[in-house]
Amino acid sequence: MESLRVALGERSYPIHIGTGIIDSAELYAPHLAGGSAAIVTNEVVSPLYLSRVRAAIVSAGARVSAIVVEDGEQAKRWENVDRVCDALLQARCGRDTLLVALGGGVVGDLAGFVAAVYQRGMPFLQVPTTLLAQVDSSVGGKTAINHARGKNMIGAFHQPRAVISDVATLDTLPDRELRAGLAEVIKHGLALDLGFVEWLEENVDKLLGRERGALVHAVRRCCELKARVVAADERETGERALLNFGHSFGHAIEGGMGYGSWLHGEAISAGMVMAAELSFLAGSIGKGDVGRVRALLARAGLPVKGPALSPDRMLELMAVDKKAAKGKTRFVLLTSIGKAVLRSDVDDKAVREAIVAAAQ
Amino acid sequence: MESLRVALGERSYPIHIGTGIIDSAELYAPHLAGGSAAIVTNEVVSPLYLSRVRAAIVSAGARVSAIVVEDGEQAKRWENVDRVCDALLQARCGRDTLLVALGGGVVGDLAGFVAAVYQRGMPFLQVPTTLLAQVDSSVGGKTAINHARGKNMIGAFHQPRAVISDVATLDTLPDRELRAGLAEVIKHGLALDLGFVEWLEENVDKLLGRERGALVHAVRRCCELKARVVAADERETGERALLNFGHSFGHAIEGGMGYGSWLHGEAISAGMVMAAELSFLAGSIGKGDVGRVRALLARAGLPVKGPALSPDRMLELMAVDKKAAKGKTRFVLLTSIGKAVLRSDVDDKAVREAIVAAAQ
Repeated sequence: MESLRVALGERSYPIHIGTGIIDSAELYAPHLAGGSAAIVTNEVVSPLYLSRVRAAIVSAGARVSAIVVEDGEQAKRWENVDRVCDALLQARCGRDTLLVALGGGVVGDLAGFVAAVYQRGMPFLQVPTTLLAQVDSSVGGKTAINHARGKNMIGAFHQPRAVISDVATLDTLPDRELRAGLAEVIKHGLALDLGFVEWLEENVDKLLGRERGALVHAVRRCCELKARVVAADERETGERALLNFGHSFGHAIEGGMGYGSWLHGEAISAGMVMAAELSFLAGSIGKGDVGRVRALLARAGLPVKGPALSPDRMLELMAVDKKAAKGKTRFVLLTSIGKAVLRSDVDDKAVREAIVAAAQ
Repeated sequence: MESLRVALGERSYPIHIGTGIIDSAELYAPHLAGGSAAIVTNEVVSPLYLSRVRAAIVSAGARVSAIVVEDGEQAKRWENVDRVCDALLQARCGRDTLLVALGGGVVGDLAGFVAAVYQRGMPFLQVPTTLLAQVDSSVGGKTAINHARGKNMIGAFHQPRAVISDVATLDTLPDRELRAGLAEVIKHGLALDLGFVEWLEENVDKLLGRERGALVHAVRRCCELKARVVAADERETGERALLNFGHSFGHAIEGGMGYGSWLHGEAISAGMVMAAELSFLAGSIGKGDVGRVRALLARAGLPVKGPALSPDRMLELMAVDKKAAKGKTRFVLLTSIGKAVLRSDVDDKAVREAIVAAAQ
């Protein structure tokens, strides 16, 4: 097992990465001072891992309850927040109960948001069981549910007490979701680390083949990169926004197609191609770099073209995106492979052209 | 105008207290860097003060929208959070838009919670127009909505950027609400400041007569006391809980009678008598002190007896209260007039007896 640390003063926490660690009681024990825990998971993950996590917590000496929500992005809605809170109240959980998010990014976002608002805040653990959650969404304290008008519009920054990433749980991940997770892996490289992009170009097949050594390396490198950025800019007033590379476009795709029809990672993949095309149109990278972005995503089995949404509709969808500051959408552009910058001066015409170019 | 400061490091903020300051553009201007504001208010306050606040913000150079919710405790529900977020999204408000809570404690709690979760947090101002909100709920960053199983069960700590308390707005406050506000005024004295209790015993009639000098004094003293406690214990891990004197019982009364049938301050008044009786039964104050608590509340025109809820039902309602730690309800007891302590060792039998004694 390897452990990193997200350095956030009194809110610092460890990320544990390993194989077969999901039911290590000693990883749960330090967070069970309140004597009780509640596990939030979904109907797919629950038959696979719930009993193991429950047993680990019980053997660490705490009472535990579980709440199972439906699978998929649609689960990130208020009714589930209310349902989880209801279950917590019925189980007499206090603000010292530990909430455990067991599942992918959806479960982590939903359960994390509940943990942020239940009785004005309770401690929680992230136990991510998808690649996307292990490399990205479980780290950094962003939690949210969706609103009819936009993704993640209602949420909170609420850091977990620890992240327990067991790459063995990726054995049960459907191929499509593994690939969707690779989109966020590639994003970390494209935005922040040329060396990691080069490693990915060498090793993407190993990741697709679920080689554990490669998976541990990828998860660890993404967590290192993200931990550094989050420590420097927890509330995303600057640098942290670089991790949104491809996300303005990607969120528009998700919202426009109806949450869940495109997986988040799939939308981000097409969004990164659009953002790369926009970077080229803004003169900050060459056409060859755009090709390199496309090629890596394609090798990972990810979509490099967006869905049939017109540039006008895409712009409309992007306008409600919360990255808009003073009414202006901020874009994350590449200045080279492995280096991203924030730009607020991009005009709609270039955005339209980038969307069209990405569709070619 | 007088100004105090709540000292919370980078989250410090001023409380402005005065007469006719609700439309002082210069009090809003420092918080409008984002160029836009949205005012949340209710149907009672809106015809009285909305146009003045709107004009002040416009003259400070920002665009402004307004969302009006219904009056009363029932407004603290998810549907209104969703409605306000919807209006904010429709008005293209970003996370740099200033949310202004114009109204009493309900509006402040609801709007503050929206500000805590809209796009993971936006700045907000408290502009309290009730005595209860001016002396208590607008200060300290507690925000929340209610859950069917308990009051304020879903919420966040989210500090305002400033509090603008105009005691002239109390001219339009119904007598019943003025008295309900006095319950929280008296609470500050009983829990924290004997000298202030003595001042209240001298001046309660002036407050009931809405003498502005007396109101300014009472608002300022409560804010001073609360600011000190909040600065020492923002997240209520200790001392801040003393401000919950009477609230375990009071919340049970509110919940048991249906939110809104008893005003919060009325329930807290009866709750403080129960808490005083419990303090007597625990041997920490004399019977004469209980009489003094009752007498002051009665002079303020407040209920000193609870409603027809059995001790068993009260205990059941209190068990879900979020002040429960490790399953034990913590009570705030008096050790003398002006001094409260936290106690977790109170048994149910004494609580029952206190409820019965308070009904005599």
